Amino acid sequence: MTPSAADSPADLIISACTVLVHDDQERIGFQQDAAIVVRNGVVEAVTTTAGAADLPAAERLEARGQVALPGLINCHTHAPMVALRGLAEDLPTEEWFNDVVWPVESNLTERDVELGARLACAEMIRAGVTCFADHYFAMDAVAQVVAECGLRALLGEAYFSSQGPEGRERSLDFALRHRGSADGRITTALAPHSPYTVGDADLAATARLAGEHALPVHLHAAENRDQTETSLARHGVTPIEVLERTGILDTDVLLAHGTGIVDRDLPVLERAAGRTAVATAPRGYLKFAWPDTTPVRALREIGVDVGLATDGAASNNSLDVWESMALTSLVQKSHEGDPRWLTSRQALHHATLQSARAVGLGDSVGSIAPERRADIVLVDLTGPHTLPVHDLAATLVHSARSADVRTTIVDGRILMRDRALLTIDVPAVVRELEERLPALVDRSHGRRIQDYDT
Amino acid sequence: MTPSAADSPADLIISACTVLVHDDQERIGFQQDAAIVVRNGVVEAVTTTAGAADLPAAERLEARGQVALPGLINCHTHAPMVALRGLAEDLPTEEWFNDVVWPVESNLTERDVELGARLACAEMIRAGVTCFADHYFAMDAVAQVVAECGLRALLGEAYFSSQGPEGRERSLDFALRHRGSADGRITTALAPHSPYTVGDADLAATARLAGEHALPVHLHAAENRDQTETSLARHGVTPIEVLERTGILDTDVLLAHGTGIVDRDLPVLERAAGRTAVATAPRGYLKFAWPDTTPVRALREIGVDVGLATDGAASNNSLDVWESMALTSLVQKSHEGDPRWLTSRQALHHATLQSARAVGLGDSVGSIAPERRADIVLVDLTGPHTLPVHDLAATLVHSARSADVRTTIVDGRILMRDRALLTIDVPAVVRELEERLPALVDRSHGRRIQDYDT
Repeated sequence: MTPSAADSPADLIISACTVLVHDDQERIGFQQDAAIVVRNGVVEAVTTTAGAADLPAAERLEARGQVALPGLINCHTHAPMVALRGLAEDLPTEEWFNDVVWPVESNLTERDVELGARLACAEMIRAGVTCFADHYFAMDAVAQVVAECGLRALLGEAYFSSQGPEGRERSLDFALRHRGSADGRITTALAPHSPYTVGDADLAATARLAGEHALPVHLHAAENRDQTETSLARHGVTPIEVLERTGILDTDVLLAHGTGIVDRDLPVLERAAGRTAVATAPRGYLKFAWPDTTPVRALREIGVDVGLATDGAASNNSLDVWESMALTSLVQKSHEGDPRWLTSRQALHHATLQSARAVGLGDSVGSIAPERRADIVLVDLTGPHTLPVHDLAATLVHSARSADVRTTIVDGRILMRDRALLTIDVPAVVRELEERLPALVDRSHGRRIQDYDT
Repeated sequence: MTPSAADSPADLIISACTVLVHDDQERIGFQQDAAIVVRNGVVEAVTTTAGAADLPAAERLEARGQVALPGLINCHTHAPMVALRGLAEDLPTEEWFNDVVWPVESNLTERDVELGARLACAEMIRAGVTCFADHYFAMDAVAQVVAECGLRALLGEAYFSSQGPEGRERSLDFALRHRGSADGRITTALAPHSPYTVGDADLAATARLAGEHALPVHLHAAENRDQTETSLARHGVTPIEVLERTGILDTDVLLAHGTGIVDRDLPVLERAAGRTAVATAPRGYLKFAWPDTTPVRALREIGVDVGLATDGAASNNSLDVWESMALTSLVQKSHEGDPRWLTSRQALHHATLQSARAVGLGDSVGSIAPERRADIVLVDLTGPHTLPVHDLAATLVHSARSADVRTTIVDGRILMRDRALLTIDVPAVVRELEERLPALVDRSHGRRIQDYDT
C-alpha cells in the first residue's frame, strides 16, 4: 500500500530525518530528508518528507537533525541483574560466580526480579534498545514488565540440571504460556544455562522439546577458553560438539559469547541443521580478562550471524548496546590485527539485521522497511561530538553515544520522547529496590544456586 | 581559611553533592552530603552541606544526586582535528597519515584551526573535560579559543625537522608568548612531533631550549611497536633511548601513547632527570589494530604517571576522556590478563592526580581540595543506567557516561550549566566550518605536510 492510498490517518509519521535503510544485498544506506509512515504498529512506507507532508496522521514527529535507526537489540542479557550492578568488581570469573553472584541469587524473590527488570527496561529504552533476549529466573515477572513497558523481548526461563527435571519443565511451561503474549511482542525460548551446568541427557531432552514445540534454544556456550579446555579434558569434546551430539544444534539456537569457539567447532556450526547465531558482549570479556573474544570473522565466513549484546549489568555494568556496537568494531579490529575489518557499516549490519535474525525476528524487525514492525529510534546528531559528518556510519558507531537517542518507538508506540520515559516510573522502582537490596545481597547464609566448575 | 572566616560572600557554593576526594596517600574517597566553597577561582573549603548553608555566596548550585569530580584532563589531543572526524576510517596508520591526514593538513588555514578548536572545546566542556594538552599547528588560534571559552590548556606548536630550524623557533616563540596567558589558564610546551619526524640535532636543541626557558616538552614517542622496531633497525636504539641521548628526558616531558615502550626502555625512563609522564589514548590503538597498548602497569612500577587522553578525533572519533577512562581500565585488564588490575579507583587516580601531573599541573588541579583551582564537574547519577550504586567508583567508571556530566566549571566559572554551553555558539561554528570543509579536505594537489616513514 502506498501512503497516498491510505484512506484513514496513519498512526504516526516521522519526518525530516535521515533513515538508515538496507538494500537488497543488505548493504547499509542513508535516505536523506525522509519520512516514515507507521500504521497498526508496522512501517507502511519510507518516503520523502515532502511526500508525507499532506498525509493525514494521528501523530507527527518532526525529527530534523536526527537519524532514524532500527531499534537496537540486546541479544543476550540478564536484565534483572541491574540490581547487582557494581557488586562484584575486578574479580576472575570463578570468584565472580561462586563468591558473589550465585550466593546472592539464592536470595532472589520474584519481586526483586520484577523491580530489576523494570529498571533494566528503563535503561534500555533510554539507550535506544527496542528488543532484548533475556535469560534469567522468575521470568513470569520479566514477561509482566515487558508487557507493561512496551518493549519487545525473547524470554527464556533459565535452568541447571542441579534443579532436576523440574528446571527444564518450568522452562518449557514458561515458553509455552508466554509465547506470543504482549500483543505478540514476547517470543520465547528454552533456556538451559550452559553445557557445563546442564548435563547431556538434559540437553538432549531440551532439543527434543524444542523440536516438538518449535521453540528456539538460548544458552551460554563456549563462553571462554577455559570452558573449552575443561570440556576437552573431561569429555574429549568441545562445548560446541556437546551441543551437536545432544541435538541442540538441530534447533534454532542462540549461543551467548562463544569466545571459546575453536577452529574444530567451525565445521560443526556450519553444518548445524538449525539457525545458529552467536551473541557477542565484548565489554565483559575485557573486564574478566578473558584471553579471547568472539571470533566474529570466522563465524561470518561460515554464515553464522553475530548479534550484539551486553550480558548482565553485574558484569558489563550497563545495558548499553550502543557501546557494544562500538566495542565490537574496536575489539574485532584489534583481535584480527586488521584495521580494515569490521567497519562501521559492518557494525551497523550486526546491530540491525544480524541481531534481528539472532533473536529469531529476522522477518519482522532489524530494518526500517515496509511491513516491518515499527521499532525505531531517533538519534540526535546535532551535538558537538558528532559534527561535522564526513561518514555517517562512522559518526553513528564511533562518535555518537546511547545518550544521543532522543526517541524510542516499539510497534509504533513511543516509549521515550525527547529523553523522557513514558511507560516506567524510575524513582518509584529505585525506591523500592533500594529497600530490598540489603536482603538481596546478604551472603551470610553460605548458599549458592549453583557451583561454577567448568 | 575556614569558610566561617570569610568576611565577604564566596563566589560559588556547590552543595548537597558527593565529592570525590583524595586522602594523604592519594586514595580515592567520597564525601557525602558535602559542599564546595569557591572564591577567586580556587576551592576555599570542602565542608558539609549544613556547614555551608548559612555562608553568603554570590551563586549557589544545589547538586542533589550528583557527584563532584575534579574536571577531566585530556592529556594528549589535536583539538582542531575534530574538523576531520570520520574522514579517514578503517585504515592502517601509514595510509591514515600519508593518504588522508597529512595531505589534508597541507590545506589548513588559521581559520580552520580556530573553528575546529572551538568545536573541540564545546565537545570537551560537554564531556566534563576542564583541561587539555594540545599539540597542533597554528596554535595562536587555539590559544585565542581557550582564552575565550574558559577552558584550561597546555599548548604546544608542533614541528617537524622538515620545516628547518624555523619550526623549532616558532614552537619556542609560541611557548614564550602564551605562557601564563588567559589569566594563567594557558601553560605551554615545546612540541616536536616525534623522534621519527624530528632529527637528533633538533631534539637536542629542543632539550637545551626547554632547559633554558623552563619549558616542558610534549611529543609523540614510541607510539607503536613498528616505530620501536624501525628505530632499532635504523639507529640501534629505541625511540625512548633517542629521547635520553638527546637530552629530552632531562626536561619535564609528556610522551604520547608509548605503546611501543619495551622492557629496555623502563630503566631509561626510571632514571630520567625530568618529570616523565605518558598519555594513553587506548581507543585509537584498538582502531588502528596496533598489537600493544600503553604498558601502564610497568610504567606505574617505575613511578611514571599515566594520564588519560583521546588523541585527535580524526583517529579516536571523539574527545571523550570519560570513555578513555573506562577503556583504560578494560584494556589494561585484558592486556595484563588480570581482572584485579586497574580497578575503578585506579582509573579515577589516573583521571585525576596522574593526569594533572602529566600536564604539569599537579599542584594546582586534579583534586577538589583547599587551594586547588576550582576545576570541577558535576555528574548526575540519577539515570537508570547508574542505579543502584553498590560501588560508587565502579558506577562512575563503568556505568556513567560523559553525557551524565551536567555542569562544567573551570577556575570557578561555569562553562556548562545543566548541559547548556555558556561560552561557545556551536551552530555558528558548525555553519562556518561546514562551508570550509570542501577546501579543507581537497587532496587533488598531491601535497602532504610530512611523510610517515617511521
